[in-house]
Amino acid sequence: MPETVTAFSWIDGQWQSHWPLNDRALHYGDGLFETIRFASDGSIPLWPYHKQRLLQGLCALNFPIDSFQRIEEALAQRPESPLQGGKLLISRGTGPRGYAPPAEPDLVLQWQSFAPPAWWYQRLPQGLTVGISDIALAIQPALAGFKHLNRLEQVLARQRFEPHWQEAVMLDTQGRVIEGCMSNLFLLENNRLVTADLSGCGVNGVVRRWLLEQQNVIITPFEPERLLAADAVFFCNSLQGIALACDITGQRYGHPAAQQQIAALQQDLENLYA
Amino acid sequence: MPETVTAFSWIDGQWQSHWPLNDRALHYGDGLFETIRFASDGSIPLWPYHKQRLLQGLCALNFPIDSFQRIEEALAQRPESPLQGGKLLISRGTGPRGYAPPAEPDLVLQWQSFAPPAWWYQRLPQGLTVGISDIALAIQPALAGFKHLNRLEQVLARQRFEPHWQEAVMLDTQGRVIEGCMSNLFLLENNRLVTADLSGCGVNGVVRRWLLEQQNVIITPFEPERLLAADAVFFCNSLQGIALACDITGQRYGHPAAQQQIAALQQDLENLYA
Repeated sequence: MPETVTAFSWIDGQWQSHWPLNDRALHYGDGLFETIRFASDGSIPLWPYHKQRLLQGLCALNFPIDSFQRIEEALAQRPESPLQGGKLLISRGTGPRGYAPPAEPDLVLQWQSFAPPAWWYQRLPQGLTVGISDIALAIQPALAGFKHLNRLEQVLARQRFEPHWQEAVMLDTQGRVIEGCMSNLFLLENNRLVTADLSGCGVNGVVRRWLLEQQNVIITPFEPERLLAADAVFFCNSLQGIALACDITGQRYGHPAAQQQIAALQQDLENLYA
Repeated sequence: MPETVTAFSWIDGQWQSHWPLNDRALHYGDGLFETIRFASDGSIPLWPYHKQRLLQGLCALNFPIDSFQRIEEALAQRPESPLQGGKLLISRGTGPRGYAPPAEPDLVLQWQSFAPPAWWYQRLPQGLTVGISDIALAIQPALAGFKHLNRLEQVLARQRFEPHWQEAVMLDTQGRVIEGCMSNLFLLENNRLVTADLSGCGVNGVVRRWLLEQQNVIITPFEPERLLAADAVFFCNSLQGIALACDITGQRYGHPAAQQQIAALQQDLENLYA
């Protein structure tokens, strides 16, 4: 059964239900998005990280200086929903034909509410079965790190999942490990956490940055061989939390001390949402 | 005065005027577009080249096998317009949350009509003043050549035009010349035409491919130095035709024999639309 999603657009200072045909997110992917999990009290535990990434993206795309303030004002008036999942889509708004944005764009937003999936590690307690995608991420520092609307690489990669995969490792065009198709990834090597450098491509996830503040993490470029030699590998995202891989392209992981260490992180994250 | 654009969406077999909030072109840029110039008799002289690129894009994005047929059926019923410019936007259509496309997507189209600009060389008879963009095109063979909806690189490049630029040369992240921000480019060197290899990035334009069939053209990777040493450089696109550069970052071009040779190509192209 497909999940129920309710969606509203914010146009001209009001929540509405249509989308403009001449919108720049539609024509060029000229915008950003965030996928958000709410705590049971309605708060957003990782909001500072969402905000940080939005500010980076708004700056990288040269959105108006007051964009974040406008977004917060709209969000404060969003339609109420008891559902604990949300997606915020931010478009530069409408404009005339052509790539040049209007000098004073009027942002158009979309807000979706939905029931988030159960935590990954609860839904798949045995861990994730993972492949390595044959779609390589292009190296584009001008678009790296933030969550913009140009997502064809992820669409192509997701289409190519084999039926038994729950996630895929994405490499860049130079063969370095970057992230999962819908998550970030970390290695555990002799009790030390390692994650990929995202200066050339990839999305700098909210759980990734939360982990970087909780733990000593080595940020470094690395190749798939290092992934396959690690004691454990885990994936993380804002909706599904932290999940260990049990199998990456046939390489199986089962280091008990590593699993215990990750379980503690899973619990710490889940506690934020209690 | 902003130009007048009329726009319609094709949803569920009818031309309508709204766009679905859960559309995949809007959320992921999961689609294609073509910008089209009509001849005075309403025909599309370069349609075979538009069709060729659409087929390449539909195949690269794994759209349903009958997509092109559905697009042609919709176009045959499009709202009549006397205007000679058109933009066709093709979305994979609506779907549930997440990157995975539905197994049987129902395409959503948009058709825009507008008055095209005058031919570039008529509007700017002195030639184009051109810069070199500091936004480099990422190398992504999986998305190269066809005209998909992930266009943030062009948006960023267009934002950075200096006021006196009419076009900008785009290099790839390895420093090779690829195209203009909204056009393809050719060099004239000792009466021979040269254009960039687009296997890693860039849009394979309809006028570019028409020229490749009219002329002997060397397709090769090259650096900006070769651009600046050429006898002439010209840009081409479907709406504005063929235009010589008069100035690229201060390098001025004025080789009279080269200009005559390009003028003949401009006339040949314009004759198709008479």
